Amino acid sequence: MNAEIITIGDELMRGEIVDSNKARIAERLLLHDLDCRHQVSVLDDPADMRDAFLRASRRSDFVLVSGGLGPTRDDMTTEVLSETFGRKLELHPPSLAAIEAFFARIGREMADTNRKQAFFPEDADVLENPIGTAPGFSIEVARSGGREGEETRPGHAVFFAMPGVPRELDRMMDEQVIPRIGARLAEVSGGREKQVVRAALLATFGMGESTLEAELGDLMRDGNVELGFRTSFPDNFLRPVARAATIEEADAKIAEAVTAIRERIGDVVYGEGTETMESVVGQELANRGLTIATAESCTGGLIAERLTDVPGSSAYFLGGVVSYSNEAKTAMLGVPAAVIESEGAVSEASVRAMAEGVRERFGSDFGIATSGISGPGGGTPEKPVGLVWIALATADSATHAQSFVFEVDRSRHRRLTAQVALDWIRRSMIGAELIGPSLMRRGGSGSAP
Amino acid sequence: MNAEIITIGDELMRGEIVDSNKARIAERLLLHDLDCRHQVSVLDDPADMRDAFLRASRRSDFVLVSGGLGPTRDDMTTEVLSETFGRKLELHPPSLAAIEAFFARIGREMADTNRKQAFFPEDADVLENPIGTAPGFSIEVARSGGREGEETRPGHAVFFAMPGVPRELDRMMDEQVIPRIGARLAEVSGGREKQVVRAALLATFGMGESTLEAELGDLMRDGNVELGFRTSFPDNFLRPVARAATIEEADAKIAEAVTAIRERIGDVVYGEGTETMESVVGQELANRGLTIATAESCTGGLIAERLTDVPGSSAYFLGGVVSYSNEAKTAMLGVPAAVIESEGAVSEASVRAMAEGVRERFGSDFGIATSGISGPGGGTPEKPVGLVWIALATADSATHAQSFVFEVDRSRHRRLTAQVALDWIRRSMIGAELIGPSLMRRGGSGSAP
Repeated sequence: MNAEIITIGDELMRGEIVDSNKARIAERLLLHDLDCRHQVSVLDDPADMRDAFLRASRRSDFVLVSGGLGPTRDDMTTEVLSETFGRKLELHPPSLAAIEAFFARIGREMADTNRKQAFFPEDADVLENPIGTAPGFSIEVARSGGREGEETRPGHAVFFAMPGVPRELDRMMDEQVIPRIGARLAEVSGGREKQVVRAALLATFGMGESTLEAELGDLMRDGNVELGFRTSFPDNFLRPVARAATIEEADAKIAEAVTAIRERIGDVVYGEGTETMESVVGQELANRGLTIATAESCTGGLIAERLTDVPGSSAYFLGGVVSYSNEAKTAMLGVPAAVIESEGAVSEASVRAMAEGVRERFGSDFGIATSGISGPGGGTPEKPVGLVWIALATADSATHAQSFVFEVDRSRHRRLTAQVALDWIRRSMIGAELIGPSLMRRGGSGSAP
Repeated sequence: MNAEIITIGDELMRGEIVDSNKARIAERLLLHDLDCRHQVSVLDDPADMRDAFLRASRRSDFVLVSGGLGPTRDDMTTEVLSETFGRKLELHPPSLAAIEAFFARIGREMADTNRKQAFFPEDADVLENPIGTAPGFSIEVARSGGREGEETRPGHAVFFAMPGVPRELDRMMDEQVIPRIGARLAEVSGGREKQVVRAALLATFGMGESTLEAELGDLMRDGNVELGFRTSFPDNFLRPVARAATIEEADAKIAEAVTAIRERIGDVVYGEGTETMESVVGQELANRGLTIATAESCTGGLIAERLTDVPGSSAYFLGGVVSYSNEAKTAMLGVPAAVIESEGAVSEASVRAMAEGVRERFGSDFGIATSGISGPGGGTPEKPVGLVWIALATADSATHAQSFVFEVDRSRHRRLTAQVALDWIRRSMIGAELIGPSLMRRGGSGSAP
């Protein structure tokens, strides 16, 4: 069985919005090992929508449509799907009641335009939307005849129409669509054996894609797992995928691959699955009962923001200072004015004083500090744009400080600096070397550092 | 003339990565008023790639391909394009030299696999990539015969193959591809009159999509401009698009529409074009020679991070404190321990003391403070998850404080709180009322508050 994703909206075709819905749908389809060979986006144009629906009905078993269910004139998915497959539109009273209740709950009057959201093609299976006004629906359609030479698959195609709002889509996929697809697949396979697929995701920081491929290339070719790479600055992700007759067997293959990867590249792997650098750092701090405070200049609050993005972070994050001005470095962190005067704010002496000062003032176990020139302005021949000093003050050992020159734009400079700082906290706790990304001076197709 | 975008990569089809390249390409095509009716994504699979290339060559004039130019085995765009259209692969010595020079510059040895990035289909127009190892290329192909009943456009199709790395793609589109498309369009039109399209983008905060549509609906129907909506939490964007015979005429229509919109919804429009809330706040502060300091609890550094994301922000942002613990609120901001004891950290008295304390300690004109319960834990019957207090301390008037209950998840709670805080600073400077988004208690399809 295969699946196709169709997203609808002028805003997608004009590039006004990045279409993340296809990714959210596709990753969920993987849970059923559903092959997604076609992804198509079309304008809010009935002819183009009709054409995409017809083509999908011929070549795909499951067609996941997102967008065009809203109350405005541009939202035509329901009407066009109905017309394309010769269905009448029918009012679904429970949906109308739900939409009315939704507006009552938020204390607003329901607009007339919202009424149309309670109409569905006849014989549709309505998919409720507990967090929005647009219910989705599913219809099963006979495959319409293809053009000569075009493949038409046997059987029926099942369409799922879902809202374009990401969190409504996510919930509808998880609670309504994925279970229905699972039931359908079970029905079709009728108990016959079926391959299962299992995957893991390993997050790495500090090693470039080609180095990773050189280190792990033979593992990729052992035939037991397929090893995918993905870059999302400043990290690289590894995705071992295993197929087997049973879940247990596939999981064993994955576990073996993960062990082998960790043996090869060790501490470069910082997390698995949905773990982020900040969640891993937080978990390690919480496990050890340790606390942290931040003193940020060039990162401007990014490290604190990331640490506090994790629920429960108040257990280990005491707070921080964003010392953007020299006066703030002195008044709020105790960096001697004479040090800033003689060495400058972007210097080893200043960043050490920041890390030690914030640790002392907040009474934390760790103090992490950044001071650099993220650009685009502010560089000098001695201190070029891209220069950054990072320091980590701890209870038991001397403060560690190091400088880097990251030749990337302002936004990436800040993100990269924050990632090195967080990685140092992690490395310090697990007894790993506080290394920086030595290859950071370069760009390069497809390869984050 | 029309355009088609094809993005290539297993990682896209599996949902491991969000494909932002289609949006970056599409928005640039708009500059030439190029209609982008088809967007397709395919696996790293030669048969699927070939099928997509053939179909595109029949129905589209410009085909913009992204991905598959890297050095790894999965990268097959060049080979498959060559085979599909019957071209030999030829070494392009200047590209090989450029790739070698790239690796020399970053002090690394060139891997053998990078050599293949210097091969291109015969007669290709090589597009240089100054910031990566993968050059792009362009080829003009004869349209292959379609299947019966399928439309085949007259003339030739022009393919542009570009890297998938976003910043390399952006630069290649801007410097190489867009000018070539422009030249081609000029050549084809041969000086004949041609419609131009101009668009504006207005960022709004604080009014829901359906209210916006109710307020502006008649403007949308006056026929002079097309008015698009787009939601990106917590903002709504308005996009008037005008078509006319000349740029001047289209610009005049746009200017008229923007004036009409601003007359209707006033201060709800906070910016135009690429302006962000933080860039607008920064510009207003810089224009007036005013400074700001931040005292953040629940937003955890997000406000400081956003303010400092703007180049040149050191002119007006003095710094901030992230006071995540009660001790930090007292020690770093001077919030009396007795106030926290009696009223709690999430209270009007505490947040006022935070705003006034940070303003005093940093010596800034404005002090902005947040304290709330972003969740998922930490709520009580009196102070539920979602409650937040925001305060703005200024030089000339009493500190303004207000509480909200934002019933959204942790991440959205933080983002929404930061946006209200930044909007208050903006509103304070332009003499607008410090209102909060009164409709924030709701969710709803397609409508941010």
